[in-house]
Amino acid sequence: MPFELTKEYVGKIAEAIEQRDVATLTAELEELYPADISEILYELDEEQSKYVIQLLDQAVGAEIISNMDPTLRKDLFKLFGSEEIAQFMNYVDSDDAADILNEQPIRVREEVIALVKDRQKARYIIDLLHYDEDCAGGLMAKELVQANVNWTILRCIEEIRRQAEKVEKVLSVYVVDDAGILLGRVSLKKLILARGEKHLSDIYDDDLISVETYRPVEEVADLMQRYDLESIPVVNVQGRLLGRITIDDIVDVITEQADLDRQAMTGLSAEVEEDDSVWMLSRARLPWLFIGMVGGLLGSRFIGLFEADIAIIPAMASFIPIITATGGNVGIQSSSIILQSLASKMGFDKSFSERLWKVFLVALLNGFIISGFVLGFNVLVGLPVRLGLVVSTALFSVVLLSSFMGTLTPLALDRLGVNPAVASGPFITTTNDLIGLAVYFSVAHVLYDF
Amino acid sequence: MPFELTKEYVGKIAEAIEQRDVATLTAELEELYPADISEILYELDEEQSKYVIQLLDQAVGAEIISNMDPTLRKDLFKLFGSEEIAQFMNYVDSDDAADILNEQPIRVREEVIALVKDRQKARYIIDLLHYDEDCAGGLMAKELVQANVNWTILRCIEEIRRQAEKVEKVLSVYVVDDAGILLGRVSLKKLILARGEKHLSDIYDDDLISVETYRPVEEVADLMQRYDLESIPVVNVQGRLLGRITIDDIVDVITEQADLDRQAMTGLSAEVEEDDSVWMLSRARLPWLFIGMVGGLLGSRFIGLFEADIAIIPAMASFIPIITATGGNVGIQSSSIILQSLASKMGFDKSFSERLWKVFLVALLNGFIISGFVLGFNVLVGLPVRLGLVVSTALFSVVLLSSFMGTLTPLALDRLGVNPAVASGPFITTTNDLIGLAVYFSVAHVLYDF
Repeated sequence: MPFELTKEYVGKIAEAIEQRDVATLTAELEELYPADISEILYELDEEQSKYVIQLLDQAVGAEIISNMDPTLRKDLFKLFGSEEIAQFMNYVDSDDAADILNEQPIRVREEVIALVKDRQKARYIIDLLHYDEDCAGGLMAKELVQANVNWTILRCIEEIRRQAEKVEKVLSVYVVDDAGILLGRVSLKKLILARGEKHLSDIYDDDLISVETYRPVEEVADLMQRYDLESIPVVNVQGRLLGRITIDDIVDVITEQADLDRQAMTGLSAEVEEDDSVWMLSRARLPWLFIGMVGGLLGSRFIGLFEADIAIIPAMASFIPIITATGGNVGIQSSSIILQSLASKMGFDKSFSERLWKVFLVALLNGFIISGFVLGFNVLVGLPVRLGLVVSTALFSVVLLSSFMGTLTPLALDRLGVNPAVASGPFITTTNDLIGLAVYFSVAHVLYDF
Repeated sequence: MPFELTKEYVGKIAEAIEQRDVATLTAELEELYPADISEILYELDEEQSKYVIQLLDQAVGAEIISNMDPTLRKDLFKLFGSEEIAQFMNYVDSDDAADILNEQPIRVREEVIALVKDRQKARYIIDLLHYDEDCAGGLMAKELVQANVNWTILRCIEEIRRQAEKVEKVLSVYVVDDAGILLGRVSLKKLILARGEKHLSDIYDDDLISVETYRPVEEVADLMQRYDLESIPVVNVQGRLLGRITIDDIVDVITEQADLDRQAMTGLSAEVEEDDSVWMLSRARLPWLFIGMVGGLLGSRFIGLFEADIAIIPAMASFIPIITATGGNVGIQSSSIILQSLASKMGFDKSFSERLWKVFLVALLNGFIISGFVLGFNVLVGLPVRLGLVVSTALFSVVLLSSFMGTLTPLALDRLGVNPAVASGPFITTTNDLIGLAVYFSVAHVLYDF
């Protein structure tokens, strides 16, 4: 049964903490997984969180900490000394330890590393601190089980026994040569089923997908997803085995990427959650709102130029919203389709001209249909035919132009290394508002012969 | 090195197919993983695809087929007889087999099931066809390794040997009692390290997370992500072990969900890709464009009511776009934040009034800032102060109203069981356009005392 956090439950825990009611607390928390306890800590303050963590087994405390939100963890760690942090580090995998220490001030980081008892773990952490978090090296853990290709199965199992204590999840054993170059892997299933005197060289699988440390995280996610991998070994350029990435870390990468894209598309400039403070929520929204304002004010100056026209035919003003809305809707649809192509990398890239030709055909068809529909409606409700023609001609042109804008902007942003999801947000609606207005008033000017 | 599909490569393969050049084809395709070959098939027609698949080993062919896009697979299978399809089914896991057969006409489905040689597989498939694809039962595979709690380790390894042939990936062994009730699991690591004469009851881990068949897929994804699971057992209401879900299927669920949300948010009514036909692309865009049109036409009728006002103060028309754009932008930002809360389920639900109070505060702050900014600008460029006040008062009200609309709409849709992502799309921009216009002209009416 999945654990459901309720207000009542948090209240009960908070009260038990206040009363230092150790019996209730341990009884309650023993029922939970560490990931659930991390969730409770979201609702407690740092002092309360510290009390809970210190009450529990150090291994459990370490797992709770590695599951926490980085911002909360940073605040919490201000209450802990370097010695205490170092003790937790003994229990977390090297990749999580490196991530946690990267959040700390350099002084704390150095102290903690010096104080970690398990010196191999300390060396692992130092190694991992070198890598950028956006590449395979920044995501890998050093903990893995490796075996020399010349060993017998029996020796290999002996080594697993020795190494496995430090490796929480053994998904497969990596096979290396004497120089540490990765040759392949052996699944635990194969090891169990093989006879002990056989050599690893007889049974290992050399058809193994690995990644170099410098590969971007998205590429790793792509590979693991495409080939249904639970873990992927990480090697240096010489092919030496350095670590492994497990699928749970990749699942987090995929979810984060989707969140970031959604936020970029909806005009939020920072990762915010409903729980954040009013000021943070407000600040995350303001940049794009301002861009919208600037666009809107430019638009108003532009329409101002045509004030004389509007004074003659006030009905022209009524169609401003339909023009701007169409520009925005069509632009966002177009950029969404390109975003998908950029993300999925399915098939090879279409040539630029093929792509635009198709965009043109779709826009032609849709522009024709909706401008025809609007013309019909306007004529039916008795609008002067000439104004109806102005509106529908403008709509048609806006569909064409916005389709191209929505297609070209994400492609250009992607080339420039900017997240193209931004192109599906207020940026494209603002730009297309302006384009739409320019088209509308130009068409009116021509057709009315002002 | 990840495989990169190029136009040249596809051309080479297509030519080899035309010339029936078996040597080149097998040499080239042997280098590739089945998932890569599936990708090549996207670029070939059905006849060519059939030729490639029949050229390869049946097991490889089966894996290529299970990696294919369902639409393409459906077309391809029209060229295969039921007998041939049944042969492929022997090689794919029961969950994939059930998915594939679900795409087929009932007659073919029945024929294939009758023709599958492996009768256990056939029974598995029949079982799985009963489940809805949106619940745990629809995602699980029946292939798994299970062991009776009373067995010794040696007996268990003997059974793995027997069962493992049919189970491609053995991540852990599920432990059941005599009635098949799931009791826990044993990792392969533990099995390797334990002594053979011990009983499973001594070493198995009873702290196991499982799901019932009827649980929605999103809940399974949530659980596996929260607790970092590679696989999760599926049980019936009595707790009997029925199947397991592996993380690769969940990764696909997460990616699909993100894609669906993005499409809903960008006003695409069907899952389309750039590669789809002009007509499909056009059709996916039309419904939301039409809703935009209807909204726009309603808006134009509404503005028409104020034609007399606009004739007197034509400058009023210039600020229509900034009002409608702000409504859209603010509404989308608000709904995006709620979407995130609904998706992450982090922390407990805030009470309704707390939620709205915060929305109100953020809107107050942002509304104040941007309407102040716009007022300042308008006064600086010499706009009549009264018109400036009308515009900024309207902007302020629009920010407030759109924040509430953007918050309440996704919450309401979620309650109604509709994907709340729709609320971040053209729906909210269209609605907010209308609200914005109503506010703007009402404020003008009051302040100008028309």
